[in-house]
This record gives sequence, structure tokens and C-alpha cells, in this order.
Amino acid sequence: MAVEDKSKSIGRLISILHRHTQIYFRRELGPYGIGKGQFIFLAALFERDGVSQEYLSNRLLIDKGVTARAIQKLEEAGYVIREVDPDDKRVNVICLTKKALELRTIFKEVAERWTNMLTSDFSEEEKELALMLLRRMAENVAYLRTDMRTRPKID
Amino acid sequence: MAVEDKSKSIGRLISILHRHTQIYFRRELGPYGIGKGQFIFLAALFERDGVSQEYLSNRLLIDKGVTARAIQKLEEAGYVIREVDPDDKRVNVICLTKKALELRTIFKEVAERWTNMLTSDFSEEEKELALMLLRRMAENVAYLRTDMRTRPKID
Repeated sequence: MAVEDKSKSIGRLISILHRHTQIYFRRELGPYGIGKGQFIFLAALFERDGVSQEYLSNRLLIDKGVTARAIQKLEEAGYVIREVDPDDKRVNVICLTKKALELRTIFKEVAERWTNMLTSDFSEEEKELALMLLRRMAENVAYLRTDMRTRPKID
Repeated sequence: MAVEDKSKSIGRLISILHRHTQIYFRRELGPYGIGKGQFIFLAALFERDGVSQEYLSNRLLIDKGVTARAIQKLEEAGYVIREVDPDDKRVNVICLTKKALELRTIFKEVAERWTNMLTSDFSEEEKELALMLLRRMAENVAYLRTDMRTRPKID
């Protein structure tokens, strides 16, 4: 007997998809010395380079200790360095190295291949629909979580 | 500059939604002594009770060591017990206790509330569409992963 109507288990499907995603990225990016907990940080840094650990932690909803360990590992693997924030000398910012920037194309290909696998039998219209609905779900929960007065835009 | 077209980042949205889901369940079920890595196992046992650790590990795509530790914690918290499999005396099966079964209604409510939050501004049609598309994505990746000849049904 199911704990919830099978037709209603969006949370469970998201959980399944997330684990498959982790396994796929680990397999594809593991050979580059990037571990399970690290590619999400690399992805965030590809989007916006030169940010603080605290920014990454808040942006990704990952606690500070876990963030610190992941950045440390990326640093040891030569993908990031810490630099003093030019705007605030008390703060360190995390910057991508040349080695990381060289990985950007591979990273992009891996991410695209994954999206293509997920949606392999979707029509173009269904792909857009899936993205739109997922984005709205992410906005709904971000909205509820932060008590913001204006609905956030998830990009 | 984004590492991938923003319009294509399904993997990233799934990752964001997964982390929000984890945070929500931890907050709601933490007071019952159920930690982050454990509610997924409890959910699977609510669906099918009296299965082996190996079954759970395969079903949830979670490695054996992590599965063993999660079950151990659920056992310590009094939610599961290990029993000898009546069909194969060499195997232990994991069974829900009365304490766990008493939690089933709360668990169901928490899961439903979460789905309602995710889809709070969706029409009935959009809710069904989101579920259908997520289920098809899960089937696509399960299919690719297992090299099955027949497409699996994700329920």
C-alpha cells in the first residue's frame, strides 16, 4: 500500500531524478577529479565567478560546513583559488582557475547530454512545458521559504 | 555567463527542487527523530514492508553502505526491526514497527502538503502534466541506465 497516492508523488519523482543526475555527473566528471558534492559548486561558479563561500552556500541552499569542504576539495584539485575580495578586504572570494575554465565546454556538453536523455522522447513543446513547470515549482518553494513579498525569478 | 543555456537547465532545477524537498522533510520529520537520509527509506518501506537492505539499495539507487547506516539509525530510533526472511533464512528483512506505522498518516500529510506547495498556483491540468512529464523523465533515465529491452514503469 502506498503512503501517498502514486499519482501525487512529485517529491518522490524529483528525488529519483536527482539521484540519477548525481550518478550520471559523477560518472562523467569523476575522471576529472570532481566528486559528487562538488559539481554543483563548479556549476554555480561557472555562472558567477568570484563570489564568497557564504554566497554559494545561500545560493545553493547547502550548509556552510558542507560548502567549505567542497570548496576545499575543488581547491586541492586545482579548480579554484581563494582571493581577497577587492571590495571588502575581510572577505575571501572563490575564483575559477584556468584549469576550471578549460573544463567549461565539457561541463556544458555533459549537462546538455543529460537534459537530452531526460527528455529523449519529448516533443519540443513538451520540453518547454517541462522546463516551465519545473521553474514554477522552484519559484513556488523559494517564495514560501523566504517569505518574500515579491515572487523570486529562478533563472 | 551561464555554463548552459538557462532555458535548458532541467538538471539544475531538479537539483534545486530536491534540496528544498530535503530541507522541508527534515524540518517536518526531524522532531520525530528521522534524519535527512532516512525518510526516503521510510517512504520505500511504507510502500513495501519486509524487504531486504539490498532491495532498498537497488530500488532507491543508494549505495549499500549508506543504506546500511540509514537502516541502523531507523532501528536505533525504533522505527524498524530486522527479521529473518521466512523464504530465505540467510537473509534479513527490514520490517516497520508499530511506532513507524503510527507515523504513516503524518508522513502522508507532510508529503501531500509538499506537493501542494510545489504546485500551489497550478491548475489541475498542469498538476497532471507535471507528474506525467516527471514520470516520463524518470522512465527515460531508468531505461538508459539499465539497458532494459522493455521500458520500465515508474510508479
